[in-house]
Order: sequence, then structure tokens, then C-alpha cells
Amino acid sequence: MRDDRETQFQTFEITARPEQGPPRLARLRAEMARAGLDGFLVPRADMYQGEYVAPRDDRLAWLTGFTGSAGHCVALADRAGVFVDGRYRVQVRAQVASDFTPVDWPETSLGSWIAAALPEGGQVGFDPWLVTVEGLRRLEESAAPVRFARTDNLVDRIWEDQPAPPMGALSAQPADLAGRDHGQKIAEMADALGDAAACVLTQPDSIAWLLNVRGSDIPRNPVPHALAVLHADARVTLFVAPGKLAGLGEHLGPGIAVAAPEDFAPALAALAGPVRIDPATCPVAVADILAGAGADLREAPDPCLLPKARKTEAEIAGARDAHLRDGAAMVRFLAWLDAQPPGSLTEIDVVTRLEAERRRTNALRDISFDTIAGTGPHGAVVHYRVTRETNARIEEGHLLLVDSGGQYVDGTTDITRTVPVGAVGAEERAAFTRVLRGMIGISRLRWPRGLAGRDLDAVARVALWEAGQDYAHGTGHGVGSFLCVHEGPQRLARTGTVPFEPGMILSNEPGFYREGAYGIRIENLVVVREAPDLPGGTVPDMLTFETLTYVPIDRRLIVAEMLGQAERDWLDAYHATCRARLAPLVEGDVADWLDRATAPI
Amino acid sequence: MRDDRETQFQTFEITARPEQGPPRLARLRAEMARAGLDGFLVPRADMYQGEYVAPRDDRLAWLTGFTGSAGHCVALADRAGVFVDGRYRVQVRAQVASDFTPVDWPETSLGSWIAAALPEGGQVGFDPWLVTVEGLRRLEESAAPVRFARTDNLVDRIWEDQPAPPMGALSAQPADLAGRDHGQKIAEMADALGDAAACVLTQPDSIAWLLNVRGSDIPRNPVPHALAVLHADARVTLFVAPGKLAGLGEHLGPGIAVAAPEDFAPALAALAGPVRIDPATCPVAVADILAGAGADLREAPDPCLLPKARKTEAEIAGARDAHLRDGAAMVRFLAWLDAQPPGSLTEIDVVTRLEAERRRTNALRDISFDTIAGTGPHGAVVHYRVTRETNARIEEGHLLLVDSGGQYVDGTTDITRTVPVGAVGAEERAAFTRVLRGMIGISRLRWPRGLAGRDLDAVARVALWEAGQDYAHGTGHGVGSFLCVHEGPQRLARTGTVPFEPGMILSNEPGFYREGAYGIRIENLVVVREAPDLPGGTVPDMLTFETLTYVPIDRRLIVAEMLGQAERDWLDAYHATCRARLAPLVEGDVADWLDRATAPI
Repeated sequence: MRDDRETQFQTFEITARPEQGPPRLARLRAEMARAGLDGFLVPRADMYQGEYVAPRDDRLAWLTGFTGSAGHCVALADRAGVFVDGRYRVQVRAQVASDFTPVDWPETSLGSWIAAALPEGGQVGFDPWLVTVEGLRRLEESAAPVRFARTDNLVDRIWEDQPAPPMGALSAQPADLAGRDHGQKIAEMADALGDAAACVLTQPDSIAWLLNVRGSDIPRNPVPHALAVLHADARVTLFVAPGKLAGLGEHLGPGIAVAAPEDFAPALAALAGPVRIDPATCPVAVADILAGAGADLREAPDPCLLPKARKTEAEIAGARDAHLRDGAAMVRFLAWLDAQPPGSLTEIDVVTRLEAERRRTNALRDISFDTIAGTGPHGAVVHYRVTRETNARIEEGHLLLVDSGGQYVDGTTDITRTVPVGAVGAEERAAFTRVLRGMIGISRLRWPRGLAGRDLDAVARVALWEAGQDYAHGTGHGVGSFLCVHEGPQRLARTGTVPFEPGMILSNEPGFYREGAYGIRIENLVVVREAPDLPGGTVPDMLTFETLTYVPIDRRLIVAEMLGQAERDWLDAYHATCRARLAPLVEGDVADWLDRATAPI
Repeated sequence: MRDDRETQFQTFEITARPEQGPPRLARLRAEMARAGLDGFLVPRADMYQGEYVAPRDDRLAWLTGFTGSAGHCVALADRAGVFVDGRYRVQVRAQVASDFTPVDWPETSLGSWIAAALPEGGQVGFDPWLVTVEGLRRLEESAAPVRFARTDNLVDRIWEDQPAPPMGALSAQPADLAGRDHGQKIAEMADALGDAAACVLTQPDSIAWLLNVRGSDIPRNPVPHALAVLHADARVTLFVAPGKLAGLGEHLGPGIAVAAPEDFAPALAALAGPVRIDPATCPVAVADILAGAGADLREAPDPCLLPKARKTEAEIAGARDAHLRDGAAMVRFLAWLDAQPPGSLTEIDVVTRLEAERRRTNALRDISFDTIAGTGPHGAVVHYRVTRETNARIEEGHLLLVDSGGQYVDGTTDITRTVPVGAVGAEERAAFTRVLRGMIGISRLRWPRGLAGRDLDAVARVALWEAGQDYAHGTGHGVGSFLCVHEGPQRLARTGTVPFEPGMILSNEPGFYREGAYGIRIENLVVVREAPDLPGGTVPDMLTFETLTYVPIDRRLIVAEMLGQAERDWLDAYHATCRARLAPLVEGDVADWLDRATAPI
């Protein structure tokens, strides 16, 4: 059988089988009893705490059947809670057997649930590689007087055909795309360590950014499974399976020592002087090894986080190129979609065609996440991912929401467009226009330097609030440069406390969802830029957004009279830019479609 | 000489004399040496931590000459810092002698300045009645290794003619205006104490609210200098000079015991069981007495804060009445002002006439703060208060900013209007219109319950930001009901973290200030209300603002083309309501003026 990736990244199969759960749970409980534990914690996360895990790390799905991208199982002798957030409340019920109890998380914390279930003195085991320093603190605080005990991974003990760790090759990210030589980045990060002698890096995207490399161990995120120690004297030790490095040639250079993953623990134990870790992402096991060797631990955020978020001019130029290429693929897709009669397509047809258009650029390295193509009621499921079981036909009168993106060597894209299928109702058009007003409000914003996402989020919502409407997600997330499509630390949301700085890329994606009926979301990526001073202005150093995404916004869904003059002007200028930039890249029917789609409102 | 209050509340004299400072500072230093202290802390605050202090508590002005409403002096042997915030940086230089060093505060904290000035082991004395529990913690943290020592007040030792404490009479606030019997409030607050046996109340406005009384000890704020203990069994002990109570009759009732202020400390020492204090406002001396007596201290916000902020329907109805009365006085004032030729009036003329119009209502108990009347460049001084020395003539081409309010038995008002004097420039009109757009944006807002001021503040600023402009103050503050014009805990500002709740009254006062040229501010009071559900809405329990202030906004300063249709509609509806409500209260020329001032835009 051919590797599916050769023809399409996205698949539509659900591999979870609820009936596998109960016997596996029984074997896990036997291991718990053998180890003298009252419970065992199985997080979705691997040691890297990212959104995607390798098959060998997908312990939560293997044990419970639940395949969502976040969650936990707490197995006790008499019950097993599966903790899932709002996105997965319906899905979890379909995927797990009745031996498992879905728990609404984070409304119910793991700790409080455990404390209510176990007597004082109860002990819950956990794999210290899979829980972060901060995560353990939260658990211990909320579950007291129940205690947590480090153990090897009990799931791995019983998972006989557990896959091997991925062995994806690393590749060099050219300095002309990264905008900086990795030697320079290393020197700057080392300088920023303060009085720490070394810093442990456990985030694959931080390591990829620091060393100007990319990886291929997990889908969607081009990062390597690797660990690193950054020394204050600007040496780096990279812990990675040697077989992954063949393609790198001389890229790393003399300042970077390579060691095998099994050398990581001894190397940590040998570190002298204060050692910096990020408690939000550092595994408990790392802190344990360091503390056991007598290291003086300094807790501080991963030093790569902010510099990685502040894209270089080369990365911003790359992002513009990637968005142009991706925009042309989107326009070809939208023109094709428009030509199909209502009722003739399914959601899977849409996903497949869109990925094919991106592949036709000959530059697609991966999609940046599984495409969300939700028609009619499926559009209201914010993280809907079509499967063969749910695949719905796209019918006359539907709104079709398509949220997708590509990984290109020069940038990561993420775009949502909502389109009408045949004639749609006045209510949908009014709601679409309100969402658009919020999206334009963010696009047009200038603000004084120093503000964070939480200070600006309301601007995207005022028009919806006015009609008694809102959306239950943030307005935007950070985006990497040929890295993860969800990247911190900045967020355009009420939880976003990190001030925006020039070069940060964010999504701008307000929405509206009527459960059981339709979903609307409009998403562009934007990059934070210094705003030029204005005559009469009194605030120096203001910031603004430059839009990166140029793909027409469906004019058939816009109620022009609901827009103010400044909003119409923005929209017409946006569409004129779409036409100017994309017209050279398309021809024939697609060019005609682009002309029509970008006419003034 | 007649008591000035009989004819006018506001005065224009500056009593500070810089030359008094140095000899007083020398005597204070002698007392410091005698007490074995390296320094002594003199805050502006009295033990009640309010904005206004009685003459006997105005130690900062007596010692230094500085008369601002906030600040500190730290006297050391070789220097004396006067810590003032951005409002007072110019004023302090004119008011203090060269023996004192103005310090920019809070940019420089008292603690860090002290730590830099004194060696390890240095000791700074302070009066524990004037520093809060939280304030001392901040000082100790930031000044370490310098230490702080409790002492009696060294300023009081040397202030021979220190005035006596005020003896202002208390009056009953009728339950039909308060909306609730005070017995009911006491029972509810006692219920809310949790496992505390008692709660110490040191905030005069909390005590006034709880007991449905008002006081007359300090200007502008109708609160009594008093302290209280609320017991979990719903008894209250009120500590107040007995002579102040003559006017109360039987109002307090049997559940409230009255004791003399000198009985307060022994009563605290006798409390049994856990005792609740608010560390943000409780004097260190109170915590010391309780701790010394072995009390179990529970720190929590003053239990009256939130219930006091959530006005009853009776208080809201009272506020509407007060604003109507105050609005008629404002309209008479504005009509008169408009009839005076440019160059014929000074700022003091304006303040005097406005207070006279408010007095003519026969309902004015006090002004709610000293009127800010700033013409031309004075308008850009956000907290400008005219004196005989600064009194400027109101000239052709000026903008005149007037921020004022009244204390009425049924409500406290606070309103700012900015008016043109003769013909003003296009720049001023454009800036005025942007400020107006922000003010209308807040007025029209609906939002999901649970949001706080910091989530909404940006809405008032987007239009200014667009032009590179902003204002360096919050958008709004809480306002009391015949209580303090600045009342917490809610704020419409980036520092506002308390969720808005129905009944909270706030100001809505964006502005723009061009230093050395002009100031613009437009301020209405608004009250938080439950918003009616809308057809098609999906968010239950939304909140909105009801506007309380109805006084025309100067149409001559509005550039109509800069307003969107919804903004024009709001403005025309606002002016129509002004006319409908105020026309019955005015006649003749004023009625004609009102007609013109409220015509559609």
C-alpha cells in the first residue's frame, strides 16, 4: 500500500475503537495495583507539550479511544475520568466505552476530581517526562491531600506493539529565509541568560528556531523531536537520534555538539552553576535530574519564545511570498467551488480539492493543520474535522466554512473563508457582515505600543455584541514562520497579556456560530508593524497590523449598508490589492472569477 | 468675616507658603533625632485613606507647602523627598522650598528611593494610623534592607496650632432614597462575613452606606469621620464623637451601639474569634492592635464595597432626578456662557456662575469636587483648578473645558462639557469629534456579563488612535450615590479588573489634550443595566449602559461627516431626550438656547 502522504496529507479515518479501551484499562489497573498506586495519570501530551504527538506517544487515544488534541485520563481503581474541553464534549462520548467517564475540563480540574475520588493518603502515579513543573504544582495544590508519585510509564509497560519513536530527518532552514545566522541567535540567547550557566530547551520549535533547522517527526508542525542545552558561553548541545541528521551536512557548525537522546540525563546531571528552565514546559523529570545533581534551578520563560515571535524582515518577506502562493491556490479552489452546483459536493471533496490546489504550487511541505470544512450545521462546530462518518453533502442554502493553511519553507499560512452555497438567508448575511466589521476593525487598528491582546480584543466584537451575538474563542493566535501554526506567547484574546511587538504574526479571526444551523469565520493573518507618525498625532511609537493574507472575502454575504464608509473603503482597497497581487498568478476562468470577486462593494 | 461656604463652596486661594517649610522640616528632623530615627514618612492620607482630608490631617501641606490631593514626604537627615504623581509635577515646584526634592512617583517608589538613600540598618518612622497594611508591605519589600518603625506622629508633636478634629453633624439618609433599610444591609453584610466573627470598617463611605447616614467632616464628600465594627450577629458598634449625632434622632436603632473614638482600640483588643480587615485600606495600627490581642486576622475586601457600588433602583431613580436638576443648572450656565462676548470672562467667573446656578436649585449640598474650568492651554492640564494666580481670561478661539458636579441628597453628579469661544480651528473640531465618537461608542455598548473595565476601555480610544492620538487617563471611574464622586471598585480603564454589574454608576469621559494649546473632554455618567434580549441574539444576560447625564454636547465642535450613521442617530436621539427632559425646567432665553443646542446634527 502506498504511503498516503504521497498523495494527500489529510486523512478521514477514525482509528479509535471504543471496544479496545476496557481490556487495556483493566491491564493498566493491574499495573497500578502492582506498583502500589491508587491511580495513574495519562495525559495527551508528550514530553514536548505540543499540539501534535507521534503515534508512540498517543497513549491517551490508545488507552481510551479519544483522539482529540488535548485531554487527560485519570485511571483509578473504580473509575476512569477522561478530561476534555468544550471542543470535544460530543466527540468523546462517541469515542470512549462506558468504562470511561467524560469530565468537563477545565471547569472541573484534574486535582479537584482526584481529591473528591480518593481518600487522604491516596497516591496517583505519573510519568515525570509528561508533566511540566507548573502542571505538577497545580495538580498538587488542587488535589491535596492526595499525593502524586513519579513512576515509569505504566501505559508503556502494557502497550506491547507501541510504535518506535519517529526518525524524521532534519533539514537546514536557510539563513536568508530565517533572516539571521543561527550562530548569531545562539550568541544573543546565551547573552540573555543572565547569571545562569546553562538553559535547558525542551520545546522543539524553540530548538528549530535557534539552530535554523526544521524537522519531520510529527505531522503539521515541521519540528524535530530533540532536546538541547544552551550554555552561557554560547555552546549548544543538541540531543537527537544521530540518524536524523544525515541531511544537515555542515549546517550546524563547530559550536554545536550533537549527542544521543540517552546522553541527555547524564549531561543534565553534569551541569555546573545555575541552570535555567521554563516551568511552563519543562518536564518534571528534567527538574528532578537537575535538582538531584544539586543544580541551582532558575525559573524563567524559554528565552527563545519572544525572539522567535518577533519575525525578522526576511521572515516577514517570506510570509508575504507564502501568502501570495497560498492565496493563488485558495483563489483557484474558490473559483472551482463556485462552479459546482449545490448538492454536488461533500466536505471531503472540498478538503481534497483544496489540498490538491496547494500541492499544485509544488512548494507545499505539509498542510499547517487538518482543514476544517464544515457545511451548514457542521460550520458551528468550531474545530470540526470531517471523517468518513460525518462527511456531509454541501446543500443549497448552506454556509460552507473552510479553515485551512499550508506549511511552506518561507512561511506558515492560516486562512478561513466562509462562502454561500446558492441563495442564503438574510440572517446569515447580517451575521457575516457583523463578523466582517470586527475583522476590519482589527485590520484597521493603530494602538499605542505596550498594549497586549486583551486590551484590543473587544474591537473585534463590538459589532456582534450590538446584535446580542459573540463567539466563544479568542480573536487570534500567534503563528510561526514555517513552524507551528499555533505559536505563543502573544494572543489576540482576553487571555493575551504579552504586549504586541513589531514582527509578531497573529491571526485575525472573529466568527459567529449558530448551533445546529451554520458557522461563520473570516480569518486573515496579520503582522505587527511600527505605524508611521501622523500629522497632528501626539502618541509616538504606535503600532499597527499589516495584512498578509490576500484572498477575496465573499461579497455575496456582505450587506453593504451595514458597513461604515471607512469599512467600505478598507474592503474595496483590500479587494483591489487581492486583484493586483493575485491576477498575475491565475488565468482563464480563475482570472475572471477573481475579477468578479474583487469588484468594489 | 462670613463663612465662605454660605455663598460659595469653591475658593481660589492658595494657602501654601513655601517659606514655612524649612523651619518646620528642621524641627521635624530634631524630633527624628530624638526618637533615634533616620527618617519619617508624612503621607497626604489620613487614617481613612480618602481623597479629602480635614485641616488637622493636612500634614503634608503644613510641612512642605504642597497642596495636591495625593503624595508623600519622606524626610531624612540630609534630604526630604516630596513624591507627587503626573498631575502635580509643575505645581509642586511652585509650592515647596528648595530644601525639598520633588520626586516623580510612582515611577520612583518610596521604598526604592529610601533604600538608595539610607544604609542597611537605617530606620524610617511612620504613624501606623496613616499607612495601610498593604502599603507597609509594599514599603518593606521595596525598601529592604531599610526598616520601618512605628511611632506616634512626629508632625503632630511639632504642630502647635494643629486644628481640632472636625465635628460635622451626621444626618440620616432616608431609606426611600437608599432603597434599603440599614438594618437589612447590616444583616446581609453580617451574613457575608463567612467564618469571621467581626469585620473592622475604616472607610467612611462604607460606614455611611451601611448605616444610611451621611456626614459633613470634610469638603466635597458627604461622609463622617467614623470607624465601625460589624459583628457576625448583625450588631454594629459605631465609633464617632457623640456630639456629631444630635441630628440623627432614633435613626440608628437598637442594633447599633455608639461608642467614643477613644474606645475603638480597647474594643478591637476585646474582639473574640477571627476578625476580617481589608488590607488595602485598614491602618497598620488596627492590624497591630488585633494581632497584639491574639486575633486571627482574615484579609478580604471591605464587604460593603460591591453592594455599595451596585446601586438600588431607588438610588438609580434618585440619580436620574439629581441629573435632571443638575442638567437644568448646566443648561442655564451654558446658555449664559454663550451670551458673553469672547474676552469678557475669566475662569473664576465661570466657576462662580456655575456654582451659583447649582445653588439656585435649592438642593445643592456641596459641589462634588472643585470645578475644573480650563480655557485654552489650561484645558490641557487634566486636573487644573483655577486660583487667583492662574486665573486666565477666556479669549476668542479658545476651547473652554468645564468639569464639575454637584452633591444632592438623591445623587452625585459629574459632567464635563467643552465649548468653543468664538470661532475655533478645524483641528480642534476634528479632535472633539474623535473624542465624541469614543464617548458614543461606550454609550452604545452592549457586552456579555462578566467583562470588566479593562475589557472595554479600548472602545473609547479607537477613533483617537486612528489619528495618532490618545489620553493619559482612564475612561471612567465609579461614582457614589450622594457619596464620593470617585468610588470603587469598578473602573472603566486598563486597570479595571472588577466585572461590571447592574446598578454600577460610572463616568464615561474620554478626552484629548494638546499641551500648551487646548484640552477636550466630554463626560456623562452612565449606569450599568441588564440589556434586553434581542431577536437573533445568542448571548444571554448581556449588559448595557443607561445614560444619566442629559446636557447638550456642543454641536459647533462636531464635524458631522466624521460620524457614522449609528453615531449620528445616537447623537440626535440624545439631544432629543435632552430637550424633552429639560425643556419643562427652563424658560425664555434658556429655552430658546436649549432648542438650538439640541437640533438634529
